[in-house]
Amino acid sequence: MKIEVTQDKINKALNIVSRVAAGRSTLPILNNILIKVEKKKVSLTATNLDVAIVDFVPASKSEDGEVTIPARLLADFVSNLPKGEMVEIKTDGDKVNIKSGKYTSIINGTSADDYPELPEIDEKKAVTFKMNIDDFKEGLEGIVFASSNDLTRPALTGVYFNTNDGDLYLAATDGYRLAERKFISKIKSEVEAIVPAGSLQEVLRSINDETEEIEILFDESQVRFRLDEIEITSKLIDGSFPDYRQLIPKKSDITVELECEELIRVTKLAALFAREVGGSVILETNKEKQLFSIASVVNEYGENTSEIETKIDMDVKVVLNSKYLLDVLNILKDKKVKLSFSNKLDPVVVKNASDKGDYTHIIMPLNMK
Amino acid sequence: MKIEVTQDKINKALNIVSRVAAGRSTLPILNNILIKVEKKKVSLTATNLDVAIVDFVPASKSEDGEVTIPARLLADFVSNLPKGEMVEIKTDGDKVNIKSGKYTSIINGTSADDYPELPEIDEKKAVTFKMNIDDFKEGLEGIVFASSNDLTRPALTGVYFNTNDGDLYLAATDGYRLAERKFISKIKSEVEAIVPAGSLQEVLRSINDETEEIEILFDESQVRFRLDEIEITSKLIDGSFPDYRQLIPKKSDITVELECEELIRVTKLAALFAREVGGSVILETNKEKQLFSIASVVNEYGENTSEIETKIDMDVKVVLNSKYLLDVLNILKDKKVKLSFSNKLDPVVVKNASDKGDYTHIIMPLNMK
Repeated sequence: MKIEVTQDKINKALNIVSRVAAGRSTLPILNNILIKVEKKKVSLTATNLDVAIVDFVPASKSEDGEVTIPARLLADFVSNLPKGEMVEIKTDGDKVNIKSGKYTSIINGTSADDYPELPEIDEKKAVTFKMNIDDFKEGLEGIVFASSNDLTRPALTGVYFNTNDGDLYLAATDGYRLAERKFISKIKSEVEAIVPAGSLQEVLRSINDETEEIEILFDESQVRFRLDEIEITSKLIDGSFPDYRQLIPKKSDITVELECEELIRVTKLAALFAREVGGSVILETNKEKQLFSIASVVNEYGENTSEIETKIDMDVKVVLNSKYLLDVLNILKDKKVKLSFSNKLDPVVVKNASDKGDYTHIIMPLNMK
Repeated sequence: MKIEVTQDKINKALNIVSRVAAGRSTLPILNNILIKVEKKKVSLTATNLDVAIVDFVPASKSEDGEVTIPARLLADFVSNLPKGEMVEIKTDGDKVNIKSGKYTSIINGTSADDYPELPEIDEKKAVTFKMNIDDFKEGLEGIVFASSNDLTRPALTGVYFNTNDGDLYLAATDGYRLAERKFISKIKSEVEAIVPAGSLQEVLRSINDETEEIEILFDESQVRFRLDEIEITSKLIDGSFPDYRQLIPKKSDITVELECEELIRVTKLAALFAREVGGSVILETNKEKQLFSIASVVNEYGENTSEIETKIDMDVKVVLNSKYLLDVLNILKDKKVKLSFSNKLDPVVVKNASDKGDYTHIIMPLNMK
């Protein structure tokens, strides 16, 4: 195997694929990158068995063959080579010669025969969508953080892609909050799939300034995301996602409209005092004074209360985890946001003020005495 | 006690002093900042008992008194307040009211009576220098990283300020490398003091774009650095610094001149292969080929050798820790550097090519079979 490619192109590809290989896997070969040339097509591949990432690199010269090389060493070596120079990578058995101008190295590789089989998708049979990259990115960024890290509940560690009334929705929940977004309107196929949040994070990280479009392909057990020269293929999570739509309140007793920036500031101030009480803060409305207030719960450090004047129809008081509130406020794009409450045990709904039902975020209150 | 001060001024002061208080001390009050107003002069103080930092803040209004407040909470609270607004801090017993526009908090403080006594220096009796801040910074940055972290050898954890032939020198060594710089020429007093490297790091971190000059005051057991409104007072290390001058080779058998940037690159490349062997790399000269080379020692990952053409008078081979070589190369300012060698067990001397004896850095070779 031999390839000749510019330093910037191979460096960029190594940066993307080496992240997946850097997982200190118990299977040592998974810390390697597979370099493969097949019919002059050069690809770099890494996998952790859940997700595989392949980057096709435009090489100026190549000879067919394949080898695997320690990901971190190769990526660090190439990134330290001078920009703009050609890099030649050539196998000599399992030894890999790397040469760029006057810099040379021999890295001990491992035969590609030992590399695990990569997931295949029958693209003709797959359910396929294409979408603008900005819509994809914004859509996903509002959802993926709401998923859980709790591996004992695997379905919650993913994002649920599902069709409802002909539209494709994304949803994620960790049991304490839930995010849902209408992702693509009027699609022809049905989709019901839970994609690991970690795989979606890899997709988000692989987007660069030149990416314009993304293609998404689902089969029964896998999903593939294609961005220009990069293909990310992930297992789906085998499990059933909670019937989340019933959790979203149809209506709330009171809706308060607030400046997003101001609400972020007062939530942060209250949260500082709430560090030792799990971040709990008290949201309260006062109809008589027409004030919305946010306060730290009682704690040893002191007290903090901030008030914001706004239109208030009724009195309500809920206790929330400030972290969850800040997470959603930080991704909302409108200057103003709406918070909707019912009683102190009902979920709080957070939306952009202009929202027409595209994005819903609910946070479960904490039950404080 | 009461002060009124703009958010940017108090925020800046809190950023500087709170670093010292954030050390999770076993004495809880050391995690607090002392705010003191004496004859209308407002100061913020933090100490970890080894070093104390005081920042005098220009307040527009003030009333005498003092209190201590948890450093991190106060610093985080103030940094989240709107820029440019006035901040009022007022005591009510041990409760501290903080108010800025419509944002208010009460932080539980602790009486200043419990705060440790701060170090005093009799400035009239102290040995005093003033110097330009850029000279101070550059001078110290070439020295402080060579000190040791090994608390069992306290003298090596500091920077040794000492006079020799009427000039003031700085020196630091961790036993494996040694850095020395002529710091101030022709001073009138004698100085011999070991300043903790950690205290000097605090001084370096306290320098900002507006700092022009620094004043340094030594007494028998302490040193004070004064930068505009900031005073940093540190204990000296009680111990004797090694007689380091005898370690610096008077002359070497061979001196090689190399491009600094190129040498950094090839050292980094070789170091990548040397990760599991403590960073050891082999430096070698070849008179016949007129080549300087740097190579990784034998290891399981592969091999790397880089060659640089330069004038070579004799053959020599030494093994060095690449980290130490990179540390010094990264602070040298010349485009070219000089490496001087004798035999494989003698220290390697690294200098700027233009150096007239102002800065010396030596690295002890590793004894490889």
